[in-house]
Amino acid sequence: MTDTDNDGVGRGSTEALTDDPRPDGLRSVPSLVLVNTGNGKGKSSSAFGVMLRALAVDWQVAVCQFIKSSDWQVGEEKIGRQLGVDWHAFGDGFTWDSNDLEADIAHARTGWDQAKQIIAAGDHQLVILDELTYLCTWGWLDESEVVATVTARPEHVNVVITGRDAPESFVEIADTVTDMTEVKHAYQQGIRAKRGIDY
Amino acid sequence: MTDTDNDGVGRGSTEALTDDPRPDGLRSVPSLVLVNTGNGKGKSSSAFGVMLRALAVDWQVAVCQFIKSSDWQVGEEKIGRQLGVDWHAFGDGFTWDSNDLEADIAHARTGWDQAKQIIAAGDHQLVILDELTYLCTWGWLDESEVVATVTARPEHVNVVITGRDAPESFVEIADTVTDMTEVKHAYQQGIRAKRGIDY
Repeated sequence: MTDTDNDGVGRGSTEALTDDPRPDGLRSVPSLVLVNTGNGKGKSSSAFGVMLRALAVDWQVAVCQFIKSSDWQVGEEKIGRQLGVDWHAFGDGFTWDSNDLEADIAHARTGWDQAKQIIAAGDHQLVILDELTYLCTWGWLDESEVVATVTARPEHVNVVITGRDAPESFVEIADTVTDMTEVKHAYQQGIRAKRGIDY
Repeated sequence: MTDTDNDGVGRGSTEALTDDPRPDGLRSVPSLVLVNTGNGKGKSSSAFGVMLRALAVDWQVAVCQFIKSSDWQVGEEKIGRQLGVDWHAFGDGFTWDSNDLEADIAHARTGWDQAKQIIAAGDHQLVILDELTYLCTWGWLDESEVVATVTARPEHVNVVITGRDAPESFVEIADTVTDMTEVKHAYQQGIRAKRGIDY
């Protein structure tokens, strides 16, 4: 299996896509760390595609959204909750008021502390840390804390981290890192985000 | 809204993520064409994340998988069907026997003909053409046929095309194109695909 998105395909290589793709020399691991970064579309949506696969094998899934608020009623949250995902919209309490930066930082830290507990508790086989990178980019959270938490996780807990500008230390601890590179974007052509597709 | 993956975020820009992000000068379009290409993980999984958003607004969704067979029982298929997605695994009839290339090509063409009808019928607001690019790469299907079908679609039909090596003509007709660029992949470290994450 040359591509875990199930598309490392070619004539004669389809055995790789069967239920138990175990070419010689490959080993199983108890869990994986995925990082979806880059400036293009697909970082969060890919995480939610992975969420579906986890749900299909009856895993417990937790989603921690660090920026989005449940007020935005994103589609993935609605369906995720329907499917039993333990959903946390830590963006809920942000003031986004530049006079209240300290309050926002404190709020983000509280969200991160909860996420840390969720990972350490080991009750979920998949924990998605959606848009976590921004907290590091803005200096609200030290990347070393994230690295320490993810590397010390219970061995059955898979983690997906999304967001632009993932620090190099995230790349180092990840098994798979994709840079969603923008080739073209509807926004550049003056098209606004579309409900049902973009959120 | 600078990023339709809901992560074009920064201090003060969160209005862009609300229910009706309509900055001055942006216009609505009746539908979008997305292309997820590149050699990294996330092309198909991102399409299935978008599928969730479509389902959340009660759209009818069709998925046409051109390579994967339902025998592989991918997780996205199981949950997609549960959620009412009209799911077509055109990979089902492939022989993958190099002595039977003509039969496989004919089979692929039959799948494409069905996909064309699904798009033209306009019964679905979202049609995902998963791994369609390979048919073009292998010379089984002319890219101009895809371009003609997608550009002539009913105006409310959104289309997502996935697969490596998307031809330039797909990029031209798309509103948003992401190249999922592989930075690092578990496979390179000898780790096999993991059920619940990769399929």
